[in-house]
Amino acid sequence: MSKKALVSLSGGLDSATTLAIALSEGYQVYAISYNYEQRNSVELQAARQVAKSMNVENHKIMNIDLSQIGGSALTDDIPVPTDNSSEEEIPATYVPGRNLIFLSLALAWAEVNHIYDLFIGVNSLDYSGYPDCRPEFIKSFQKTANLATKAGVTGNDIKVHTPIIEMTKAEIIKKGVDLGVDYSKTISCYNPDEQGRACGVCDSCRLRREGFQKAGVPDPTNYQEKE
Amino acid sequence: MSKKALVSLSGGLDSATTLAIALSEGYQVYAISYNYEQRNSVELQAARQVAKSMNVENHKIMNIDLSQIGGSALTDDIPVPTDNSSEEEIPATYVPGRNLIFLSLALAWAEVNHIYDLFIGVNSLDYSGYPDCRPEFIKSFQKTANLATKAGVTGNDIKVHTPIIEMTKAEIIKKGVDLGVDYSKTISCYNPDEQGRACGVCDSCRLRREGFQKAGVPDPTNYQEKE
Repeated sequence: MSKKALVSLSGGLDSATTLAIALSEGYQVYAISYNYEQRNSVELQAARQVAKSMNVENHKIMNIDLSQIGGSALTDDIPVPTDNSSEEEIPATYVPGRNLIFLSLALAWAEVNHIYDLFIGVNSLDYSGYPDCRPEFIKSFQKTANLATKAGVTGNDIKVHTPIIEMTKAEIIKKGVDLGVDYSKTISCYNPDEQGRACGVCDSCRLRREGFQKAGVPDPTNYQEKE
Repeated sequence: MSKKALVSLSGGLDSATTLAIALSEGYQVYAISYNYEQRNSVELQAARQVAKSMNVENHKIMNIDLSQIGGSALTDDIPVPTDNSSEEEIPATYVPGRNLIFLSLALAWAEVNHIYDLFIGVNSLDYSGYPDCRPEFIKSFQKTANLATKAGVTGNDIKVHTPIIEMTKAEIIKKGVDLGVDYSKTISCYNPDEQGRACGVCDSCRLRREGFQKAGVPDPTNYQEKE
């Protein structure tokens, strides 16, 4: 039986590609998604479809209400920026501690299931303003994870894999297309409508659209207004 | 105005003492407790009373259902041990990833409230079987915390204070008594009855009872059967 891995799956393009990479490396893949009272609940539906389309049998939806914490445009009533602000400092869509909380929950569920390989689709190029997408954060978390759990006591090293952390969006898309990812099932928009259609103008839509253009791949995204 | 600190408050003896220490150091104290669907919900009521008795105005109760993760006697239908098992290996009451998850949530709430000093009443002597109570875990978490958040970018160092980590239970109790902690408001039992009375026989009760004896302090605990 192949080694198990747990992939954090948001329903977006990056995590879908990360899931495909984990599968291509021969892991028996478990997936975990987070119902964090995000304004964008269309994400979770996308995560379910992505997991199903890649035949992931064990898909855990973890409830964690991050609106209790506050302070982000993704959970609170703060406008989602459309002005390229993710290229400067820390964007309004940053959710305080989100990746640390998500990784901690993933680690706990992994521990219960005897999984020592975690995959997360963080990216330090497109999201350089998010402190918790940086390679040094991931490296430090991995060390903390080994100290926090039974693994550190029993000698089963926990590894946090970030296969797309230094890829451009176009590189991620090319990799995913090679691995057969159906990007029409993914959603990246911060502000989709009720039908799950992307707004086309938020920072995340902009990065995604440019990614498809630069990769020379037809963009399968369902936009609210076709251009 | 004094510097702010966030204290993790479980309702137990250790965290109540930690809260008193933070107050004695002059911090403006915020407290955070976790409703984690623990079998022992009496804990939360104790946490509220402790916070109130020490005039902590900002007390956040964070909902995080750890029974979603499973694998512990504290959240699942697994027997609570009464056989001193906390002195050997990893006890059944260990909740996978709990301190990492709690510290991550505390960190996020601290960040939103511009708090850079976190206090947690972990103890490495009485709970040496819990990997996430060890000093090396806390040290690594502190580094990860600085990398995970805006603090690491803006240069506001986050510090994780563990004032009782190397104290014996008797030393903790003596310190708390000096600082005026009312231990009758705290509960340490893994298995209290509906009236919030301690069982007197679980590992946690045993450690607490011995602590009062060794400290030479009358034990104010409300036990189910008085000896």
